[in-house]
Amino acid sequence: MKILTKQVLDSWNIQIKSAQKLTDQLDDNQLELEIAPNKNTGKYLPGHLIAVSNGMLPLLGLGEKHYPELEIPFVRTPDKNGQDGPDIPTLRQNWKGINQKLSDQFMLLNTSDWLARHTTDTEGAFLKEPHRNKINVVMSRTSHLAYHPGQLAMLRK
Amino acid sequence: MKILTKQVLDSWNIQIKSAQKLTDQLDDNQLELEIAPNKNTGKYLPGHLIAVSNGMLPLLGLGEKHYPELEIPFVRTPDKNGQDGPDIPTLRQNWKGINQKLSDQFMLLNTSDWLARHTTDTEGAFLKEPHRNKINVVMSRTSHLAYHPGQLAMLRK
Repeated sequence: MKILTKQVLDSWNIQIKSAQKLTDQLDDNQLELEIAPNKNTGKYLPGHLIAVSNGMLPLLGLGEKHYPELEIPFVRTPDKNGQDGPDIPTLRQNWKGINQKLSDQFMLLNTSDWLARHTTDTEGAFLKEPHRNKINVVMSRTSHLAYHPGQLAMLRK
Repeated sequence: MKILTKQVLDSWNIQIKSAQKLTDQLDDNQLELEIAPNKNTGKYLPGHLIAVSNGMLPLLGLGEKHYPELEIPFVRTPDKNGQDGPDIPTLRQNWKGINQKLSDQFMLLNTSDWLARHTTDTEGAFLKEPHRNKINVVMSRTSHLAYHPGQLAMLRK
């Protein structure tokens, strides 16, 4: 089991590194632009990714959200609805901050922790569906983490 | 191990279903459009995804490419370079065809098959890096399968 949980975490780390690199390649002016006409701005996407990563901490039983102030502007409110959230330099710091925080916390979990249920699942439901474990949260968030950078890449010159 | 390989395959199937649904929601005229000014056309993305999925068959030791004719227009050649590949109705059929083919072939592998090395890896390299197994191919292709539909979604009205 150890090798497979490691592979899932490696896959998460590859996507984090790639998304982070892409965000670093785009300057603040580029991130203010829409990724396509009438679609999200570049800024909204890292904001949304940070906010969703934040939510992994309580879901995995690893503490409270690191930047709870990002929940309203980047998860509960669509882009361009008057909830701008922090400025881009702050978001860049938050992006590195949440990735480091998750990386540190992930190191604390062993294989049997990863196979245990996540916090929103009940014991009864977990008995019936043992795949609803913590490592599954990382798998689904890894796909989410690939989906939005595909859009962010459209801002590259 | 069995539960984890199942989870990886479930994750793959979720992304396949989502990408397939998105492609079905777009009509042929929408797929002819660029996803953003001067970017790939909608058509290129399912073409590319089918061609990459094709490559999984030999890589996993599951036979030859199902639609080898898609390799040149959708992997070796960037979009809009005079290699149009098949028309959109044919691509829609190929997309369902390769997904069904992979799904059927995946059923033939058991857990120890998934943990064995993929075909481009040598025995020596695999001994040093046992994570270079068949299930790892599915993990990395699952992220790829999330990345491009994030772009295709730009064509939704």
